[in-house]
Amino acid sequence: MALPVAADDPRRTRFSRALRREATDTTPVWLMRQAGRYLPEYRATRARAGSFLALAKTPELACEVTLQPLLRFDLDAAILFSDILTIPDAMGLGLEFAQGEGPRFARPVRSAADIAHLGVPDPETELRYVMDAVRLIRHELDGRVPLIGFAGSPWTLACYMVEGTGSRDFARIKAMAWNDPASLHRLLDVLARAVAAYLAAQAAAGAQALMLFDTWGGLLAPPMFAEFSLRYLDAIAQHLRAHVVAAVLPLILFAKGVNGAGQLEALADTGCAALGVDWSISLGEARRRVGARVALQGNLDPAALHAQPEIIEREVAALLRAFGPHPGHVFNLGHGITPEVDPESVAVLVDAVHRLGRRAVAEGG
Amino acid sequence: MALPVAADDPRRTRFSRALRREATDTTPVWLMRQAGRYLPEYRATRARAGSFLALAKTPELACEVTLQPLLRFDLDAAILFSDILTIPDAMGLGLEFAQGEGPRFARPVRSAADIAHLGVPDPETELRYVMDAVRLIRHELDGRVPLIGFAGSPWTLACYMVEGTGSRDFARIKAMAWNDPASLHRLLDVLARAVAAYLAAQAAAGAQALMLFDTWGGLLAPPMFAEFSLRYLDAIAQHLRAHVVAAVLPLILFAKGVNGAGQLEALADTGCAALGVDWSISLGEARRRVGARVALQGNLDPAALHAQPEIIEREVAALLRAFGPHPGHVFNLGHGITPEVDPESVAVLVDAVHRLGRRAVAEGG
Repeated sequence: MALPVAADDPRRTRFSRALRREATDTTPVWLMRQAGRYLPEYRATRARAGSFLALAKTPELACEVTLQPLLRFDLDAAILFSDILTIPDAMGLGLEFAQGEGPRFARPVRSAADIAHLGVPDPETELRYVMDAVRLIRHELDGRVPLIGFAGSPWTLACYMVEGTGSRDFARIKAMAWNDPASLHRLLDVLARAVAAYLAAQAAAGAQALMLFDTWGGLLAPPMFAEFSLRYLDAIAQHLRAHVVAAVLPLILFAKGVNGAGQLEALADTGCAALGVDWSISLGEARRRVGARVALQGNLDPAALHAQPEIIEREVAALLRAFGPHPGHVFNLGHGITPEVDPESVAVLVDAVHRLGRRAVAEGG
Repeated sequence: MALPVAADDPRRTRFSRALRREATDTTPVWLMRQAGRYLPEYRATRARAGSFLALAKTPELACEVTLQPLLRFDLDAAILFSDILTIPDAMGLGLEFAQGEGPRFARPVRSAADIAHLGVPDPETELRYVMDAVRLIRHELDGRVPLIGFAGSPWTLACYMVEGTGSRDFARIKAMAWNDPASLHRLLDVLARAVAAYLAAQAAAGAQALMLFDTWGGLLAPPMFAEFSLRYLDAIAQHLRAHVVAAVLPLILFAKGVNGAGQLEALADTGCAALGVDWSISLGEARRRVGARVALQGNLDPAALHAQPEIIEREVAALLRAFGPHPGHVFNLGHGITPEVDPESVAVLVDAVHRLGRRAVAEGG
C-alpha cells in the first residue's frame, strides 16, 4: 500500500484494542460502506468492472476499492468490499443487480423442496473470489490497519432468498414464519452453517475481525426475533468461539432496529465482542444496558454527513459524550454512507473523531 | 347506517372507555387503514371516484369508504377516511398521487422564502371537504361506534413538504435540521398551528377521538426527535387541552419507531390519552414504562394477517397476555393493513380479540 506505517503506529491496533475494551490513544473510527459510490475513484473502478457483481467477484478490483477510502481518510479499519448475498448466490439462487434497483434472485426460495436442495457452499472453492480478496487485501494493507470480514445474518439472507428481492413489508417470509416455521427453520439452519463456515474461512484467509449484519432483524416483533434471528446469531457466535480463537478475532453483531427491552442484552450475551448500534437509541442507553460485557460501535445518523463541518464536529462531540469515558467505543455511522455524501465531509468526521476522542482521553473522559 | 345498535350496546362506548382506562366487557379493536385497498368494495368506490384524491375530497365517497369495514367487521371505532397530506395541500403545495407511487408535491418547500409564504389553512373553508365528511360520517354512524379524526404530525408533514415525496433517508430535511434549524422551526411552528386548528375543527364537526401520526419520528436520533418532533406534538396536545375538553375527546399519539429510553415516557407526558405502539417492542414493556398514565393502542405486526386463522388467534392471545390485565388496551395493528390481506383474516382477527378479550375479563385478567 502507498502509505506504510511504523510498527508502533497506534492505527495498527486502535480498533482491535477498542473492541477488547482496552485503553487507546483516541477513539477509532471506520464507516459502514466506506468503500462506495460517494467516492469518485470507486465509481471509476466500478465503471471499469462493468457491473457491481463483476467488481465484487474480481479480487484485484475488490481489493482496489477496499483500499480507496484508506488512501483518503485516516480510518482505523478496512472492511472487505463484498456483498451479503454472496452466500445465496453460491447456493445457486442466481444473484442479479438490475440497474438502479436493489439485488434480485433469479431463483428465489419458495417451497420446502427448494429449501431441501440447498447445501452449504465450500468457501475455498465456491466462494474462492472472496477468500482471494481477503488474502490480497491483507497483503496490500501490510499491517497498517486491521481488516474486517463480514456476512449477512441467516434471517436477513432468508428475507432476500424468500422474497426474491428487497420488500416493503416482507409479507412472504413472515407468512412462512407463521404458517410453516419448520421449513423456515430448515432454511435458517443451513444458512447458519453456511455463514459460520464462510466467516471462519475469512478468518483463516486473514480477516482480523468479523461483522455479522442482521439488517432486517428489526422487522420482527421481539418473540419472533428471538426464534428466527437471535437463535442463529447465537449459533454462529458459538461456532466461531469453538473454531476460531475469539480473543484474537472479535465478532461484531449489528441487528438494526433491535432495541427492545432485553434484546440488546441478549445480543451481548451471545459472547460477541461488540454490538453495532443504530441511531434510534443513544450510546449512553446502550452502554447502561449492556454494561462492560461488550464494546459498542456506532451510531451517528448517516444523514449528518450532509451537515456543515462545524455541525458534524458538534455531533461527534455529542456522540462521544453520550458514550462516556473510554474505552470500548468504535465510532461509526448507524447505517451505511449514502451515495450523495461529499467525501470532504467524511474527512471532517474522521478528523473530528480522532481529535475530540484524544481530548476525551486526556481529560480522563 | 344499515346496522343500528341499541342504546346500551357496549360497542357504543367500549373504545372510549378503554382510552379512559375504564372497565370494558372486552378489548376494543380497530385497525389502521381499515378502510382501504384490501376491500373489494373500497376498490370499487375508488374506481368510481377516478382517483385517490377525488375519493378523499368528496365527502359522500369518503363517508362511504369509512363505513365499509364496519359493515363487514365488528369493529369498535370508525376512522375518517382521508390523508395526512390534506394540510400541506391546503397550504398550496399541490398534492398529487402518481399511479403506483406515493404522494408527491408539485411545489415542495425548499427555502426560507417558501416557508415565509405558508399560512394556517382555515379548516371550515380551505379544508371544508374534511369537515363535511366528518359531519356526514357521524350522522351515518348514528352512535353505533365512535369516530376518530386524525392528522399527521408537524415533523412528518414537514418531511414530505421538504423532500417533495417519500424518501429513503430524508437527507434534505435532515440537512435543514442541522444547517438551518431556524427555518425548520418556522415551518414546524406554522404546521403545529395548522394541525391544532385542523384537529380542533374535526372535534367541533363531530370527531370523538383524535389521532396524531408521527410516521417519520423514528428517523430522528433521540435529541433531534425531542427538538424537531416531540416539542410540536406537545404544543398540539396542550392546545387541544386548552380548546377542546380533553376528558371527552381523547388524543392518541403514535410515533412509529420511537421507543428509546425516556421517549415513550415523554410522549405519555404530553397529556395524551393513549400511545400507539409499533410491534418492535412488547406491550408489556410499553406498559411497564408508561404505567397507568395512558392507554395503549397496538401492536400486532400487520403481516400477521397473512397467517392461518389458528395462528392469528394464537398471536392475538399472546398480545393480550403481553398487555396484561384490563383495562386500557385498544387492540390495533402496529401499522396499516396492507392491500394484499384477505378480508376474511380481518374477520378472524376481530372475532379473536373480542372472544379472547372477554375471556381475559372473566378471568380477572
